[in-house]
Amino acid sequence: MADAKIHDLVIVGAGPAALSCAVYTTREDIETLLYEKAVPGGLISTTDWVDNYPGFPDGIEGLTLGDNMRKQAERFGAVIELGEVLGLKKQGDIITLDTTDGDVQAKSVLIATGSGYKKIGVPGEDAYYARGVHYCATCDGAFYRDKRLVVVGGGNSAVQEAMFLTRFASHIDMLVRSDFRASDVLVKELESKFADKITVHKGIITDEILGAEIDGMNKVNKVLGTDKATGKKVEFETDGVFVFVGLQPNTGFLKGSGVELDEIGLIKSSADTLTTAIPGVFVAGDCRADATLQIATAVGEGATAALKIREFLEGHL
Amino acid sequence: MADAKIHDLVIVGAGPAALSCAVYTTREDIETLLYEKAVPGGLISTTDWVDNYPGFPDGIEGLTLGDNMRKQAERFGAVIELGEVLGLKKQGDIITLDTTDGDVQAKSVLIATGSGYKKIGVPGEDAYYARGVHYCATCDGAFYRDKRLVVVGGGNSAVQEAMFLTRFASHIDMLVRSDFRASDVLVKELESKFADKITVHKGIITDEILGAEIDGMNKVNKVLGTDKATGKKVEFETDGVFVFVGLQPNTGFLKGSGVELDEIGLIKSSADTLTTAIPGVFVAGDCRADATLQIATAVGEGATAALKIREFLEGHL
Repeated sequence: MADAKIHDLVIVGAGPAALSCAVYTTREDIETLLYEKAVPGGLISTTDWVDNYPGFPDGIEGLTLGDNMRKQAERFGAVIELGEVLGLKKQGDIITLDTTDGDVQAKSVLIATGSGYKKIGVPGEDAYYARGVHYCATCDGAFYRDKRLVVVGGGNSAVQEAMFLTRFASHIDMLVRSDFRASDVLVKELESKFADKITVHKGIITDEILGAEIDGMNKVNKVLGTDKATGKKVEFETDGVFVFVGLQPNTGFLKGSGVELDEIGLIKSSADTLTTAIPGVFVAGDCRADATLQIATAVGEGATAALKIREFLEGHL
Repeated sequence: MADAKIHDLVIVGAGPAALSCAVYTTREDIETLLYEKAVPGGLISTTDWVDNYPGFPDGIEGLTLGDNMRKQAERFGAVIELGEVLGLKKQGDIITLDTTDGDVQAKSVLIATGSGYKKIGVPGEDAYYARGVHYCATCDGAFYRDKRLVVVGGGNSAVQEAMFLTRFASHIDMLVRSDFRASDVLVKELESKFADKITVHKGIITDEILGAEIDGMNKVNKVLGTDKATGKKVEFETDGVFVFVGLQPNTGFLKGSGVELDEIGLIKSSADTLTTAIPGVFVAGDCRADATLQIATAVGEGATAALKIREFLEGHL
């Protein structure tokens, strides 16, 4: 359905950066429409517990924090549409978004689509997606009570999520490609408190995820890998695999739009003004090149973007 | 008292930017000492109500938000010292802070001193400071129940605080130098809901604050001004004056340090890395040039600064 209205601001995404911007713009009477293809709140809504977003002395559930931000933006008049943005082009002063609801026009756009989970790209990964292969411990960990798990990855999120998964799993084999890239404090915590439940295997390349017919269903039962030091094949029996190897920016829809991306697909911008290569198109949060992938930073950038967008709409930027 | 220890990180200030950074650094085992000369929580602790810090759907009291952030940083091990930093110099790899407790040495420093309230610089302003002339409505508004007030200023904070002061004052004369510089939504709110209690006088230069002996005490009783259009003198009887004309960066201690300041005293930095002209000295929040003066942005910069400080301490920045 085409929408004849030209919006003041359309925000692509509804995570922390997007909602922070919307709180500011709607409070200042800038009419704001958000497009979200999945869940308002973004990636934090699938995060178990947020300890480092300032303002909550004991931390807060990710889902609650996301929901709080959504309610706050809606209180000031933000409208969130469920739908996907497929493309973007600017002609004259008008930016047109190609969406699953048809064309949507705007004077300014904020891209705050964040980043999704990165895959390792091995046989079996797609075939067993959500039926043994997972990327979100909070969402799917509870399916593995008293089961064996394999965790793939060696960064902060891999270490953190592996520790979290010990709430459910009876044992975890952690496959680290070379050595940990996680912070010392996390690695020390894992080694000192979780040694009984997590066995760390360093220098292991994950090659394939295998399954078998179990209780009438095709389920994951094994992970094959290679020991880099010896070149020998190794295998790990398991009931499921959690992959934590980084994030993939949600910026595919910008190809050919004129918005500049870096080699992994993050959006290039001026750090001062959060402007992209297209005037009137701004960026904030985890899809921005140099993103810190922290909620606090995303929220800060959302607020800054709102002030810059207002300047742009008033003709001062 | 001199302190022989070389700290990993000393943060000057304990407002939102400072505490956000401390949450991150202490959680990552970077030993962190904060110096605060007044109240931990910073300027927000003197702000009545914060509506636009994402995560609190109905807003939150400034004092509570500041306190939450302090508790959160302390939970991870941040140490807050009450004391003032008077100067900064770097020799070799060591940064020395001249404090009211003697010299304090650090490998890295974050300056997050924020900005204080700006004065209008008229006769009577200093003489009646805190005895009729005020800069913080939350702190001192309640002293003016059923009294007359003059508010000086025309920006967002002036409009917002004038509306807040109607909780106490019987009437407010608002002296605006030229025209409002506040957002339309705030001006409309003031004009539509507060017209019975707030009389706006545009184009008035405030010249002097006068007082008299009342009940045995020397108290403010009058504000003198000039009407710019007619050149005529005007006067306003009042029991007190609230001045809201902007902020003054708390960066005087950096004169001659090598940290570069702009013409009003804000600290120049790279927006990407928050580095100042001195390697190892970082800046975040309201004392940074281009600061948005928003809590969300200060908190975001605090988190970003923490990551950059870690990189610096590890030798990667």
